[in-house]
Amino acid sequence: MTVARFVHRYNSLRSLVDRRLASVVANDEPRDLMEGSRYVLIAAGKRVRSTLVLLSCRAVGGPIANAIDAAVAIEMLHNFTLVHDDVMDNAPSRRGHATVHMKWDVNNAILVGDVILGLAYRNLLRSKTRNIQRAAKLFTNALIDVCEGQGFDVAFESRRSIHLPDYFRMIGKKTGKLIATAAELGAVLGNGTPPQVRSLRAFGTHIGRAFQIQDDLLDVVADESDFGKQIGGDILEGKKTFLLVQALEQTRGKDRATLRGLRRKTKRSSRNKRDVVEAVTAIYRRCGAIESARRHVKRETAAGLRALNGLPASESRTMLQWLARMLVQRTS
Amino acid sequence: MTVARFVHRYNSLRSLVDRRLASVVANDEPRDLMEGSRYVLIAAGKRVRSTLVLLSCRAVGGPIANAIDAAVAIEMLHNFTLVHDDVMDNAPSRRGHATVHMKWDVNNAILVGDVILGLAYRNLLRSKTRNIQRAAKLFTNALIDVCEGQGFDVAFESRRSIHLPDYFRMIGKKTGKLIATAAELGAVLGNGTPPQVRSLRAFGTHIGRAFQIQDDLLDVVADESDFGKQIGGDILEGKKTFLLVQALEQTRGKDRATLRGLRRKTKRSSRNKRDVVEAVTAIYRRCGAIESARRHVKRETAAGLRALNGLPASESRTMLQWLARMLVQRTS
Repeated sequence: MTVARFVHRYNSLRSLVDRRLASVVANDEPRDLMEGSRYVLIAAGKRVRSTLVLLSCRAVGGPIANAIDAAVAIEMLHNFTLVHDDVMDNAPSRRGHATVHMKWDVNNAILVGDVILGLAYRNLLRSKTRNIQRAAKLFTNALIDVCEGQGFDVAFESRRSIHLPDYFRMIGKKTGKLIATAAELGAVLGNGTPPQVRSLRAFGTHIGRAFQIQDDLLDVVADESDFGKQIGGDILEGKKTFLLVQALEQTRGKDRATLRGLRRKTKRSSRNKRDVVEAVTAIYRRCGAIESARRHVKRETAAGLRALNGLPASESRTMLQWLARMLVQRTS
Repeated sequence: MTVARFVHRYNSLRSLVDRRLASVVANDEPRDLMEGSRYVLIAAGKRVRSTLVLLSCRAVGGPIANAIDAAVAIEMLHNFTLVHDDVMDNAPSRRGHATVHMKWDVNNAILVGDVILGLAYRNLLRSKTRNIQRAAKLFTNALIDVCEGQGFDVAFESRRSIHLPDYFRMIGKKTGKLIATAAELGAVLGNGTPPQVRSLRAFGTHIGRAFQIQDDLLDVVADESDFGKQIGGDILEGKKTFLLVQALEQTRGKDRATLRGLRRKTKRSSRNKRDVVEAVTAIYRRCGAIESARRHVKRETAAGLRALNGLPASESRTMLQWLARMLVQRTS
């Protein structure tokens, strides 16, 4: 397939999901709750997780119809976490739009998240499958892990030293698990064989990890105009990214003191901000953290692609390979 | 059965649920999240909803083992709503203990609610039944309705005029639905016949309504020492209770102006508070709102008890009848 065909197929799956998301909220009342939910669900997104569900289902020979409800549900579960996380992080905007708690208030944001989660389950449970109990258990495990991952992330803010295993546990739950679940869920709903389900779960686990480390990397190496958010945002917030955790282990003396000095919500002038981001990026480069991140991304992507070898060759498998490469080559 | 036996049986079902709730949170980390969840789930409660699940299952001839996971899940769904509602209402305490957002913070309260909901689904999906899809759909409908009900409740705060149908819609979703779902879920998991399931759903719907109106009544007529919270709390908060909504429809002139003047979070001296509560209670009495509430409670309870006639006579049916009467005769 040519790249144009990949993009075309990806976009057509994405529109399928977008149309369903736009019609999920059927009621008009209570007004703030329904408008808030619609606002979240129609916001533009890459729909990576839902596309993964659909392609994984196809890759084991199942029809899209088996997986579309679960694909929509996974995207909604993701959106539920974004709305609540934004409250917790006190984030003013997301994808260029005001967050729900800014546009309405915290109460409505809590409730919008809750009802989106309820509607996610409603969609999931509509799936036509003999595996509904298994699918619902996978979905629920992902929900619980996402909450635990966010709990670790919050806890890390006030912890001085975080090591790589802590980081991987946190990010595996907060971000990785949902991506792995998307792939596994598609395979289950497509009635894949146990080895096929395992292959797709492994694929999702590896590319989930690659995806997140790439995200951490993009904070310092992305092109600002592409990325859509300020370069170095994670640095200025003192976020415990792969780079920071790795660099804290690799540095001593003055560099280490600079990194330790990064704290969330420190007030700085924009000149000072630029200086901090530049200084920290230089440390990341010097101590090998950036190189190490790139290596991890490459290794995880390769492991993910290898896992796909367990599946029969098909257009959907090729699409999954393309998607994995695209996710880690992205610049935004 | 004697009252002592009823109480004994109720307490033994309640302990069964309590023991399960105490062991639901198995992890120790992330610490605030896990401690907060345990704190909520081990707090003493009447466990009305979970007992309803168990008794309904027994009343259609099913074993307790079929329904215990769902009973625990329903209680957790209820607790999820309490934690998030307390944040939205800015409530400092519940059942004599500090609320989660007071003991920790709002972020942890949001996350504790979320993870309790996830753990609720995990329990529900453990149920041994061929009806798991149906059970999970009922559970999910209750979740969505509870969110919508809370959304209406929040919206009512800033609405000047609320009529009885608005009130019944709000309270039916916010409180009634979960009680109706508890009874229906028990019947479904006990493999009740369709007419039996309908009977128990009707039973739950009617006693759910009676339960809530009784709650509204207790705010003004309860014995303060029994009730455990301040008499007239709803009045001072300007909460849209059955009594207020009914009284607003029945009064004119000065009385109506007094009722209209009730607003949430008005600062008052304790002397002034007592005067306001007394004045409003007198209006409720004068305009017949209290009498009307009592009539509604009686009527709904009777309708609930009639619905039970569709079930074969059994000890569990007798327990349900006793439970319904107890709930509306309670003074706290």
